[in-house]
Amino acid sequence: MEEKKFNETSWKHHMKGGDGPDSYACNSEFQKQVLISTEDLIRQQIDEHLNIQNASFDPQNTFRIADFGCSIGPNTFYAVENIISAVKNKYKKSNQDQTPDFQVFFNDLIGNDFNALFRNLPSDRKYFVAAAPGSFYDHLFPKKSINFAHSSIALHWLSKTPKEVIRRGINKGRIHYLGGEKEVKEAYAAQYVEDFGRFLNARADELVDGGLMALQIVGFADGDAFSLSGIRMEYEILQSCLEDVAALGKITKEKVDSFNLPHYFASESELKELIEANGSFCIEKIAKMASPSGHKSDPKGFTLQTKAVLGMVFEEHFGNEVVEEVFRRFLDKVVESPEFFNDKYWEHTIYFVFLKRKGVN
Amino acid sequence: MEEKKFNETSWKHHMKGGDGPDSYACNSEFQKQVLISTEDLIRQQIDEHLNIQNASFDPQNTFRIADFGCSIGPNTFYAVENIISAVKNKYKKSNQDQTPDFQVFFNDLIGNDFNALFRNLPSDRKYFVAAAPGSFYDHLFPKKSINFAHSSIALHWLSKTPKEVIRRGINKGRIHYLGGEKEVKEAYAAQYVEDFGRFLNARADELVDGGLMALQIVGFADGDAFSLSGIRMEYEILQSCLEDVAALGKITKEKVDSFNLPHYFASESELKELIEANGSFCIEKIAKMASPSGHKSDPKGFTLQTKAVLGMVFEEHFGNEVVEEVFRRFLDKVVESPEFFNDKYWEHTIYFVFLKRKGVN
Repeated sequence: MEEKKFNETSWKHHMKGGDGPDSYACNSEFQKQVLISTEDLIRQQIDEHLNIQNASFDPQNTFRIADFGCSIGPNTFYAVENIISAVKNKYKKSNQDQTPDFQVFFNDLIGNDFNALFRNLPSDRKYFVAAAPGSFYDHLFPKKSINFAHSSIALHWLSKTPKEVIRRGINKGRIHYLGGEKEVKEAYAAQYVEDFGRFLNARADELVDGGLMALQIVGFADGDAFSLSGIRMEYEILQSCLEDVAALGKITKEKVDSFNLPHYFASESELKELIEANGSFCIEKIAKMASPSGHKSDPKGFTLQTKAVLGMVFEEHFGNEVVEEVFRRFLDKVVESPEFFNDKYWEHTIYFVFLKRKGVN
Repeated sequence: MEEKKFNETSWKHHMKGGDGPDSYACNSEFQKQVLISTEDLIRQQIDEHLNIQNASFDPQNTFRIADFGCSIGPNTFYAVENIISAVKNKYKKSNQDQTPDFQVFFNDLIGNDFNALFRNLPSDRKYFVAAAPGSFYDHLFPKKSINFAHSSIALHWLSKTPKEVIRRGINKGRIHYLGGEKEVKEAYAAQYVEDFGRFLNARADELVDGGLMALQIVGFADGDAFSLSGIRMEYEILQSCLEDVAALGKITKEKVDSFNLPHYFASESELKELIEANGSFCIEKIAKMASPSGHKSDPKGFTLQTKAVLGMVFEEHFGNEVVEEVFRRFLDKVVESPEFFNDKYWEHTIYFVFLKRKGVN
């Protein structure tokens, strides 16, 4: 613990807080659909891989769950309740009289609206609640103190935009690597190797022997044609909105050029390679899930959802007024492009990854 | 855990949030002085009573500290760092090569500004951070999961104003039991018996065998003449401000009559009796500390401090505008009463209570 540094690149890489109409709480249906689509898979994996004979899972001890990148609810409550119910089920099936007490740690960046998360807590919950603020690329919990780690639609957020992309100005005219030069993609990939490696190292320390980890990660299958991606189109529309605002003189072209979204969409082989290189986890399952079709034909809902997720990172770079203008224009452009919602552009993938911490048991 | 109910009487019995000039963070010098005055006592008690031979304190395990009624900092950080340093010292003195990892749980009501608490976290901290929202009169942590419990200047907050005081209207013309009828005092005392009992029960479950608890409690020595108390004068001035606002027709007299502050100031014998009745703790020390003289001759600072502490509970009952008007008037009245700051009116006491959880060790 002595060497620990609690430095975070940014506090702003989080969802829109509060309970208002533009909050993440009101605009996260897509993320909820992802959870629903993996609900049964998680239950099945827990049933198969939770070894309650292992001393770490003695029902006398607390069963600790952490959700990494939880945002402000309600999706995180849905996710942890599914896990708790599956774990209880496993104890009952094994004729254990007792189930452990559950303690859930909600994690997100320090800038996340934890006040809203706490207000949103289900009043009938059957678990103890704690929040652990900080970047999930750092160590957040004591050694061997977590029984189950969960993270949904969060690990495509890099800790930062790769420095050299900004320093060398190699991505002008774009706000992301999709559709850009090879060296830009490589810089993003290198940042992902570093970040996902740090995530795995931290979780390897924090999980008990035999501890489980379920991840839902936005990614692209190897060889997917990025050119067909709706995400790329979405980012290009956002880029054009920024250029419009720059043309009006409200922000400088340099400001737009220095803006790059800190997202990386890994492939299955990249994920496998990094998990194997880390060496602390058995891969119990990697499955490609169909992306839920939460966007269709609703430009306003899609815009609100995009703003709830990306608004803070735009605000950090450009300020609040620009954000409002950019997303007003974004809505107009999306309305004018019904083709944008064609299913074929939204075939990017959610990877479901289920890992077990190696250990003496 | 099954029977657990997470019902809270009010979310508003908390300090003023944010980082602004009227926040608790900027107006809690008195509370800090209390911490400073007991700093050495806590270190000495830890040195004397922390039994690191006890399996609960194996340095391989995490040492978990909870601060109950933490507010938003910076005082809580000061308090936990003093505890951590004393605990580390004890391990070193005992020639232990290793000290445990520390995890600190910051507790306050769900309405507390945890976002501000997290923003205020010391960047050089050497402990893992978590927040546990909820009333400290409920169970907040799993059984035997906390090594050290701390609470400073928080336990005079009852879970609610005694119901019969409001229902029977037996305290009209006052906002508190001080100086009131005997039956009002008795109703408050009965509420304290219930609440402090619940606090002790919950902590008895949560603390490990041999776990320690340090409390700083505002109270009055047995037989103290309440009539001399500055707190009573303070509440009477607040009452007269409310009456002024009612006279202007901005609030009704009934609204004022139904307002009673949920505070109780226990005596040493009451504290001892309740701890002994609970039976789970050894009383290692009860000491009467002099009240720090943080008020003197600074009407503006005193008003800001009073508002930071009581503003939310006034706001809950009367609304925000009334709060502003009440405390404007409060400042005027305090300025006109220099006698108010005479030391003799501020002889109320802080009790320092140090307990050890009984157990097999």
